[in-house]
Amino acid sequence: MKTAVIDLTHGSGGKAMSDLVASLFLRAFDNPALNKKNDQALLDRPGGRIVMATDSHVVTPLFFPGGDIGSLSVHGTINDVAMAGAWPVALSAGFILEEGFPLDDLERIALSMALAAREAGVPIVTGDTKVVERGKGDGVFITTTGIGVVPEGLDFSGDRCRPGDQVLVSGTIGDHAMALLAVRERIAFDPPLLSDTAALHTLVARMVESVPEIRCLRDPTRGGVGAALNEWAQQSGAGFRIREEAVPVREPVFSACELLGLDPLHLANEGKLLAVCPRERAGELLEAMRSHPLGREAAVIGEVTDDPGQFVEVETTLGGARLLDWIRGDQLPRIC
Amino acid sequence: MKTAVIDLTHGSGGKAMSDLVASLFLRAFDNPALNKKNDQALLDRPGGRIVMATDSHVVTPLFFPGGDIGSLSVHGTINDVAMAGAWPVALSAGFILEEGFPLDDLERIALSMALAAREAGVPIVTGDTKVVERGKGDGVFITTTGIGVVPEGLDFSGDRCRPGDQVLVSGTIGDHAMALLAVRERIAFDPPLLSDTAALHTLVARMVESVPEIRCLRDPTRGGVGAALNEWAQQSGAGFRIREEAVPVREPVFSACELLGLDPLHLANEGKLLAVCPRERAGELLEAMRSHPLGREAAVIGEVTDDPGQFVEVETTLGGARLLDWIRGDQLPRIC
Repeated sequence: MKTAVIDLTHGSGGKAMSDLVASLFLRAFDNPALNKKNDQALLDRPGGRIVMATDSHVVTPLFFPGGDIGSLSVHGTINDVAMAGAWPVALSAGFILEEGFPLDDLERIALSMALAAREAGVPIVTGDTKVVERGKGDGVFITTTGIGVVPEGLDFSGDRCRPGDQVLVSGTIGDHAMALLAVRERIAFDPPLLSDTAALHTLVARMVESVPEIRCLRDPTRGGVGAALNEWAQQSGAGFRIREEAVPVREPVFSACELLGLDPLHLANEGKLLAVCPRERAGELLEAMRSHPLGREAAVIGEVTDDPGQFVEVETTLGGARLLDWIRGDQLPRIC
Repeated sequence: MKTAVIDLTHGSGGKAMSDLVASLFLRAFDNPALNKKNDQALLDRPGGRIVMATDSHVVTPLFFPGGDIGSLSVHGTINDVAMAGAWPVALSAGFILEEGFPLDDLERIALSMALAAREAGVPIVTGDTKVVERGKGDGVFITTTGIGVVPEGLDFSGDRCRPGDQVLVSGTIGDHAMALLAVRERIAFDPPLLSDTAALHTLVARMVESVPEIRCLRDPTRGGVGAALNEWAQQSGAGFRIREEAVPVREPVFSACELLGLDPLHLANEGKLLAVCPRERAGELLEAMRSHPLGREAAVIGEVTDDPGQFVEVETTLGGARLLDWIRGDQLPRIC
């Protein structure tokens, strides 16, 4: 039997596209705003300032242990919205499909997005579908955009880090990147290593409720903890000092990093966040994080320093110190 | 001299990506929300209900007479937002770049987006950049998402068309598709035919001010006027009757359609809108449209009919009638 695949008519604006959208996306994402079938979604008047975030997803392979491009595209954008302390209220999704892509795979991805959106309580309210010729794309790319509402008084931003502030991470790092690397390079982990892909907005809500004085949050995706801290250092004009032994890393991830010469602090995560807060509130924030399923392994990993050079320094387990720079080159392309 | 091109490090989350974003996108799109350099943009509390729309742009060629993928990606999404009667307030942009894409071309596109956004008064407040390997993309794809605020009391939707309502178009149709076709197929027009790509929100604002009773608006992009009317017919459970001779078509577009066996009613537009309004307000709406530079050639082209079959019928110039169906297949792939 011939497998049904995407062809150029699915991107034509005609009947084939309309049928694809109705039979697949509308059915999977089912919600009142989307079901109106207009070219845009109408949402209620939001009760506060809004945030907007967007992420294009080009991860390869499309399906990986612990997730797929669908769940990742929902979680990734919800997390970018949540990192402003916001409650996400709606998502849009733009699909760029390659001619010949199996409809079965597209359906599996759509259902995974629908499940992730439903579990997170954030509807996919509008979207768009384009098709490119065979060899001009790579299966499917998904760009999701999210909007969320920020509670009154919150103003998280990467330029608010002050010397003495504490740095917390919500759990083990490197799981997503290593799970993908294992699939790509056929490294066998037993049990298999899973991506940590997850929506973090409920964790953020608990943190904000407990410690509204949080300076800033970030989900360390591409470039990992290293890139996130270097960005904050630049934005705030301060330095960071991280204690390597305080950073939670799963044993298999740690071992694989040793073997492959990778630094866990440079590996991408899709279900973890970094937080900076005033020193005197760090204990309370840690407690709030640990009380949430997605923050059970949270830890204080270091602090902001008064360093005009804006360096991110790591105290190694052996008692030495090294600089944690941005990664140069691309360790692991198309991780998200 | 070697031309600077995109490589995989530009998508790594590391220094190369940060530098690309800073030197190119931040400089081109320059605005307070974006300049905060967070992973999301914070916007003021909007004064009403909001709409959200997204469009992935895969147009080929990237540069065409009258525009490019950059201006198109700004106009397209502003228009989807505006078709809800909304005033657009912010855009996001997700870039999927192919390894080897010339940085000069990317800069030209970013500057074109910046100019389009500035002319429209709608800032690009957040974005994302991914890079895929050579042969896994096609130069650049741009997914833009827009949000806008809907004035109190407006509720445009494609399911509100009622028999007797009048259908208006804001100007000549088919210009965008034919301009692209001319480039692709090396058809010479003298003077060259230009895409109509334009942001329609100021036209919409004038229309709404004059006739708030408008039922619905749509920009007939892929699939053209035919697809838009068939969608409305389905949504409203009504039919449409269009008078072919009333539909404005530029002479060269008309001639080329005759020659190539194309129907202007199926051709994509990027700077035109269709409107449906109650019969008694059609004159006033037409006058409002014609008073705006982007609506000077507006016309009443037909009406909504009481047709349970939900057919879109065209009265031909010869006095006959034909059904205007959705296009089957894809006349012209990657038009936007």
